[in-house]
Amino acid sequence: MKEIDKYVKIHEKRFLDELFELIRIPSISSLPEHKADMYRAAEKWKEILLAAGADKAEVYETDGNPVTYGEKIIDPKAPTVMVYAHMDVMPVDPVGLWKTDPFEPVVKEGKIWARGADDDKGQGFMHAKAFEYLVKSGKLNCNVKFLIEGEEEVGSPSLPKFCKKHKKMLQADVILVSDTSMIAPDVPSITTGLRGLAYWQVEVTGPDKDLHSGLFGGAVANPINVLAKMIAQTTDDDGRILIPGFYDDVVEVSRKERTMMAKAPFSLDEYKRSLGVKEVAGEKGYSTNERTGIRPTFDVCGIWGGYTGEGAKTVLPSKAYAKISTRLVPNQDHNKIAQLFVKFFESIAPKSVKVKVEYLHGGPSYVCPIDLPAYKAAEKAYTEVYGKTPVPVRSGGSIPIIATFEEILGVKSVLMGFGLGSDAIHSPNENYPLEQFYNGIRTIPLFYRYFAEEMGR
Amino acid sequence: MKEIDKYVKIHEKRFLDELFELIRIPSISSLPEHKADMYRAAEKWKEILLAAGADKAEVYETDGNPVTYGEKIIDPKAPTVMVYAHMDVMPVDPVGLWKTDPFEPVVKEGKIWARGADDDKGQGFMHAKAFEYLVKSGKLNCNVKFLIEGEEEVGSPSLPKFCKKHKKMLQADVILVSDTSMIAPDVPSITTGLRGLAYWQVEVTGPDKDLHSGLFGGAVANPINVLAKMIAQTTDDDGRILIPGFYDDVVEVSRKERTMMAKAPFSLDEYKRSLGVKEVAGEKGYSTNERTGIRPTFDVCGIWGGYTGEGAKTVLPSKAYAKISTRLVPNQDHNKIAQLFVKFFESIAPKSVKVKVEYLHGGPSYVCPIDLPAYKAAEKAYTEVYGKTPVPVRSGGSIPIIATFEEILGVKSVLMGFGLGSDAIHSPNENYPLEQFYNGIRTIPLFYRYFAEEMGR
Repeated sequence: MKEIDKYVKIHEKRFLDELFELIRIPSISSLPEHKADMYRAAEKWKEILLAAGADKAEVYETDGNPVTYGEKIIDPKAPTVMVYAHMDVMPVDPVGLWKTDPFEPVVKEGKIWARGADDDKGQGFMHAKAFEYLVKSGKLNCNVKFLIEGEEEVGSPSLPKFCKKHKKMLQADVILVSDTSMIAPDVPSITTGLRGLAYWQVEVTGPDKDLHSGLFGGAVANPINVLAKMIAQTTDDDGRILIPGFYDDVVEVSRKERTMMAKAPFSLDEYKRSLGVKEVAGEKGYSTNERTGIRPTFDVCGIWGGYTGEGAKTVLPSKAYAKISTRLVPNQDHNKIAQLFVKFFESIAPKSVKVKVEYLHGGPSYVCPIDLPAYKAAEKAYTEVYGKTPVPVRSGGSIPIIATFEEILGVKSVLMGFGLGSDAIHSPNENYPLEQFYNGIRTIPLFYRYFAEEMGR
Repeated sequence: MKEIDKYVKIHEKRFLDELFELIRIPSISSLPEHKADMYRAAEKWKEILLAAGADKAEVYETDGNPVTYGEKIIDPKAPTVMVYAHMDVMPVDPVGLWKTDPFEPVVKEGKIWARGADDDKGQGFMHAKAFEYLVKSGKLNCNVKFLIEGEEEVGSPSLPKFCKKHKKMLQADVILVSDTSMIAPDVPSITTGLRGLAYWQVEVTGPDKDLHSGLFGGAVANPINVLAKMIAQTTDDDGRILIPGFYDDVVEVSRKERTMMAKAPFSLDEYKRSLGVKEVAGEKGYSTNERTGIRPTFDVCGIWGGYTGEGAKTVLPSKAYAKISTRLVPNQDHNKIAQLFVKFFESIAPKSVKVKVEYLHGGPSYVCPIDLPAYKAAEKAYTEVYGKTPVPVRSGGSIPIIATFEEILGVKSVLMGFGLGSDAIHSPNENYPLEQFYNGIRTIPLFYRYFAEEMGR
């Protein structure tokens, strides 16, 4: 048995107990009433880093939620790895669909069940324990920095400014992130692309007060009817987005690369079964993996207006709202897209309503080249633990800050994710298999070893 | 000063106090948690009728909410008037927009402010007080029956069965109803037409759980996007409803009648200003009054799905819902329309989603001929109090039970409404001008007098 395996075995119960303390803090960044929990989570991370062997760790104020930064510098000439993770989690509604309390983690069926079990408390915490092992065993051969932020789930609005301000402190040779998934427990993969994101809230106002739908219906614009038409007009029947200029900067992926992508193990039947759908849907001319991997999307994430209680209330409401997002692919500029959508949505509004479009947040897409030394180190690490070379994949998800790191700090990130598609992140009953949690702690120290080797140390 | 004017003057404070006791009961029929309040309202109405002079009054059980019935039979050979009113009210959300407690009536600016102040507690209560006056003054020359139901706002589902069961008890020469509006305080009008109604709830299910919109977005049908497209497909750009067969039974109103309608006093500028809209909207080729008076409509009364909290949560939701209504014109059968919509909405659903359409309730439209003796009696009564002949108008609203009375009991209704367009019924800050309330109590006794005359007594 390898030394790291022994270390995990001996401490596995303690690792879980410590992680659960972190998970129990309901650090939902999108809800202002959880502001104090963000500070509790930041202090908890400081404690975790110091306990694991950091020389120093501090909670930093930002314009928004706090950031925890910690480091251990073994040698100014050694390569430096900066671990990025986030302490914030998504809201838990619809809370009625959770089988257990989202903030009281339980272990069942070999998995941890809780909000943040995977995204990103479980995955972030693996790095603290891998680091602890390297420090305790005297095998740490890189400088290590930890940057744990509290606004990832709301688009990291304060982190770019923090990075600019602390550019020197955050200098590194690579940023290491576990906030993505692998294809399957027996098909390791490394995410080499992330989609960008733009997110808006729209408000459509018809009459200035709710009206009786009998007395006024048919003669005054109903903002729900209008909003539905406007959303409908944003895509065509082939799933193409009709915002003028939307596709202008999209780089079409080559036939060759698409052929390679098509070789990744994937069963459409299994995919449909796992989601409970009879048919998939999406942009004409692209496969399911292409639709999430290399194509932009238009999704309404929320909609509301009028009477939503029990039974039948007739009303012609004054207002209707929607939360609308697009996922963007490499080369699409989220700020440009943000403006194109505002312009388009305002332009298609009939004169009988008022439309307000607010851009809430966004971020660029990201691509990691597979010949990067850090990528090769990650590849070797996975291969050793999982017995298979990891597949490079483009993910449909977005971590806007990754592209920003490249822009501000000039540092590439490697996305060593250990999540699974079945982890239900952002959904009720989020979970994280113990096997993936412990395998992550086994794999990360190997990354440090091979990365130092790649860097000639 | 006339005797009735004196009577109102002497008792005006008591009338309000009694009405307010009724209003304070939050008898919202669409919310199950108010079931007990429905019984309290029914008992209160029994008390009101007995105190006003009814020989007997009883609370009857139905399949749903209770009904209060009371009567005073002065002579089996005298004409019989049955007063219909409803004790139930609409929900009060959005409750934050109310300036005062919806169930604690206040008098301000010459108006009563409360849920039910007009619809239909205020208007219904006028009949109790007009009846009280006729009994006390010895001037009652008709038999009077009162039928006060508790499910009007949810489409009167239990009343048809109640009417069939108590057909003999409910025999009458005319049904008198105050549950509509006049054009303006100085432009009396009598509603001669009511639109029918059909109301559905639809549920669109995409994946069987909420999904990460990055990992799955673009490849799996988003039920909100789909629902928006389905709603958009139900009407065309000219405001015509595209449900096949929807207009089949609509009788086009003659050019002559439309020309008469166009003479009713109406200012489009004032209408737009009062609603805070720059433009009206509706079916091409029809005026605003025609759109509400003689044309059917399609309105989404409520919509919801996905994340509707503060800030930005990315999610590809499992479900989206809408509450959808149509207003129907004479000759359209609501049961037929109910089926046409279900068939249509299911037929336009893509295979990537599941659609469930539930028909919640509906009712037929109604027309009152202006040569009916009771209509003429009402006309004379208004003319005497308001100094002007009332205008016959077709309302856009629906009182489904009115057509049902005709069908089951074989009795026509006369709609002597004293509400105003500004009363905000079904909306926050519902109100009822005191002047209309007291004028109603003055006008109704005259109806009885002239109706008896018309009936040759």
